Amino acid sequence: MHVSATEIPGYTYGTPAVGSSSASMDDLQRLKVATGFNAEDERYLQLAGAVLGDQVEAIVKHWRAGIIAGIPHLARHSRKLDGSPLPDYLARSNRRFEQWILDTCLRPYDQDWLNYQQEIALRHTSAKKNQTDHADSTSHVPYSDIVAFVAVLNETIRPYLQAKGHAEAEVTQMHAAWCKSMHMQMALWAKPYMEMERAGREW
Amino acid sequence: MHVSATEIPGYTYGTPAVGSSSASMDDLQRLKVATGFNAEDERYLQLAGAVLGDQVEAIVKHWRAGIIAGIPHLARHSRKLDGSPLPDYLARSNRRFEQWILDTCLRPYDQDWLNYQQEIALRHTSAKKNQTDHADSTSHVPYSDIVAFVAVLNETIRPYLQAKGHAEAEVTQMHAAWCKSMHMQMALWAKPYMEMERAGREW
Repeated sequence: MHVSATEIPGYTYGTPAVGSSSASMDDLQRLKVATGFNAEDERYLQLAGAVLGDQVEAIVKHWRAGIIAGIPHLARHSRKLDGSPLPDYLARSNRRFEQWILDTCLRPYDQDWLNYQQEIALRHTSAKKNQTDHADSTSHVPYSDIVAFVAVLNETIRPYLQAKGHAEAEVTQMHAAWCKSMHMQMALWAKPYMEMERAGREW
Repeated sequence: MHVSATEIPGYTYGTPAVGSSSASMDDLQRLKVATGFNAEDERYLQLAGAVLGDQVEAIVKHWRAGIIAGIPHLARHSRKLDGSPLPDYLARSNRRFEQWILDTCLRPYDQDWLNYQQEIALRHTSAKKNQTDHADSTSHVPYSDIVAFVAVLNETIRPYLQAKGHAEAEVTQMHAAWCKSMHMQMALWAKPYMEMERAGREW
C-alpha cells in the first residue's frame, strides 16, 4: 500500500468518516460475476499495483495536465465557476486520484472498498463535491462525463502497465483486470447518482 | 448495413416510432470529446463493421448462450419470472442484439442514432421492457448489470476483430474505437435510467 496514504488530504479510506455503502457485498458479487472478475484478475491487479506503484504521479499528471486540462467541460470541475484555477483543490484531489489507482489494484474488494466507492461517487455529486477541500467549484461532475472519461483511463493506462518489461500476455491480463474493475466501479458509482434522483429503484 | 435490418422484429431504428432523445447532439459531442472519439475512430468502426459483418450471429450466440445463459441474474431477463424460457423473446432480442453490433460500427452517430440509444435504454427499463415483444419477463434490467456486462462485450469482441487477419495494430485501433463507443453508449443509456428516478438532474 502507498506508504503515505494516511497523509493524503481528505483521504478517509477505511475510517469511520466514510458512510456504509447502500450497495451490498452481494451486489458487488453480482457485479463480479457479470464482468467475469475472478481470482486471476485479483492476482493481476496486484501485479498491476506493483507495476504502477512508482508511476502514479506521472499517470495522474498525464490525465490531468495532459488530457483533462485541454477539455474545458472536464477541466472546469477543478476550477472556480469563473474558470480561474484552484491549485490547492487540484493538488489535493490529484493526490487522491493517485491513491485511487493504487486502491484499485492493491486493496481487497471488501466492505471498506465498497464504502469508499460510494464516498468517491458522492464526492462527485452535489451531495459532497467541494466539501472535502472547501473548494468553490462546480456543484457536481455529471455521471455521463465520468463514464465517458473512463474510456481514456483504460486506453492510456496500458503503456504504464507495459513500462516494467512484462510479457505482452501479462500486460493484457493486467489490463483486462483493470478494465473489469473500472466497469464494477462505474456500476457502483451509478448508485449514489441515481439515489440523488430518487431512492435506488432501478440500479 | 445489414440487408435484412428492416425485417428484424421490433427494430425501429430511424422510424417515427422512436422518440426524440432527451440527450442532444451537443451532449453527444461532449461525450465524444471526453472519450477522445474522433474521425479516426469512425473509420476504424467502419472497418470493424466490415470485419464483424458475417460474425454477428456467432458473437451474439457466444454472449447469450455461452456467457449470459450461465449467469442466472442476467439470464432471467430473457425468461419468465418463474425461470422458464421465452424462446421467441430471446430469438427476437438476439436479432436486435446482432443488429446493434452493426449499428455501433456502421451507422453515423447522428440524431437517429442518438434517438435509438434512448430507445435501447428505455427497452431495458420498466418504461418499455417486454413491450416490444409482448413478453412476460422481468420488469427491467438494472443499469449496473448492463455496465458490468459491457466489460465482457469489450473483452470478448477482440478475437472477432482479429478473425479476418488484420494487423495487430489495426485490431487495437478497431478495439479502441469500439470501447470508446461503448463508453459513450453507457453514458447515454444512464440518462433514461436516471430519468426514471427523477427528471435528469445530474446526468
